[in-house]
Amino acid sequence: MTQIKDKSVEIFLDELASKQATPGGGSAAAVMGAQAAALTSMVCNLTLGKPKYAEVEAEMQALLAESEALRTTLIGMIKADVDVFDKLMGCYGLPKVSDQEKAHRTEQIQIVLKEATLVPLACAKACAKAIELSRVAAEKGNLGVISDAGVAVMAAYAGLKSAALNVYINAASLKDREFAEARLVELQEVMAGVDIAAEDIYQIVKRKL
Amino acid sequence: MTQIKDKSVEIFLDELASKQATPGGGSAAAVMGAQAAALTSMVCNLTLGKPKYAEVEAEMQALLAESEALRTTLIGMIKADVDVFDKLMGCYGLPKVSDQEKAHRTEQIQIVLKEATLVPLACAKACAKAIELSRVAAEKGNLGVISDAGVAVMAAYAGLKSAALNVYINAASLKDREFAEARLVELQEVMAGVDIAAEDIYQIVKRKL
Repeated sequence: MTQIKDKSVEIFLDELASKQATPGGGSAAAVMGAQAAALTSMVCNLTLGKPKYAEVEAEMQALLAESEALRTTLIGMIKADVDVFDKLMGCYGLPKVSDQEKAHRTEQIQIVLKEATLVPLACAKACAKAIELSRVAAEKGNLGVISDAGVAVMAAYAGLKSAALNVYINAASLKDREFAEARLVELQEVMAGVDIAAEDIYQIVKRKL
Repeated sequence: MTQIKDKSVEIFLDELASKQATPGGGSAAAVMGAQAAALTSMVCNLTLGKPKYAEVEAEMQALLAESEALRTTLIGMIKADVDVFDKLMGCYGLPKVSDQEKAHRTEQIQIVLKEATLVPLACAKACAKAIELSRVAAEKGNLGVISDAGVAVMAAYAGLKSAALNVYINAASLKDREFAEARLVELQEVMAGVDIAAEDIYQIVKRKL
């Protein structure tokens, strides 16, 4: 099956809008994170090689390497979200007539639910990283394209808050409460201070316009 | 030339990351807005026809019509942003040797800058509308997909704040201060209370998970 990344933007949006279960908000979150990383890369690409920004050349090179690696990770997460959701739906569809079947079905659902908690948690972490990277672009990038660093931070912030919702849902259905609570603590750590950081970076950009 | 909407998600992201001036943050803002509208549509599509939600059937039909029309508008804005930016770059490239050339170039730049202020302002308004629509999805949509309404509001919010940056930049370069100030007042009206509204809708969703 054609991966979302290989479909046109319009078809992706059509499928997002449709009654098909996937792609859904999890994939949209990863796409927003990937847009954020791409825009930080754009700021780097339009800062590198400019005599006026020679002083930050090395830092922009390093930032570009990080944002491009992050973009690859986030593009992979578009598919990871679809895959784990489809896998979960498969488990819900398992037979549940006999007690044995019921037990097997519950067990399988719980195994995949753990994965379905880890996938958006990883996406949330990647988006938090994208926020961090956008700060460097906002602080040191070419003033002529600094607004793109502001779009980057907003896209990353939206991706993070979106991915978090999928962690909450799936963690809530987990019977292994120790695992679930540990993931929620991890998420809380990722989200700590992120509202302030995103607004701060946005204001850095706005002041430079 | 192939429109962005017809390019694959990955190619769109590649071009966003590249040193080409377009697509940039303005197109990314429109894509986020379109994702928001698409996700509100998804919630509608998965609420319609369910006996449990028969009471909100008519409202969901109306919401779907609005979110789909808005999605079409926002998809058009991906291209509008590229077009006006390219047009502006064309003006900056006009000859500026003679006084007559300089005067003509300045005049043309100022004409297109007005357009380049109106395009992201329209995008900001469309994203504000997408936030409003996501509230109905969050309040009345199928609980099984309510997180998608939460992703919708975050995507719309990010799109709005992103589009606003492009209004600020282009309005700042306008010599017709009356026009510029009037557009900034319009934007301020669009943005009034939007931080609180977005967080409120996000919390409505979070409480339902």
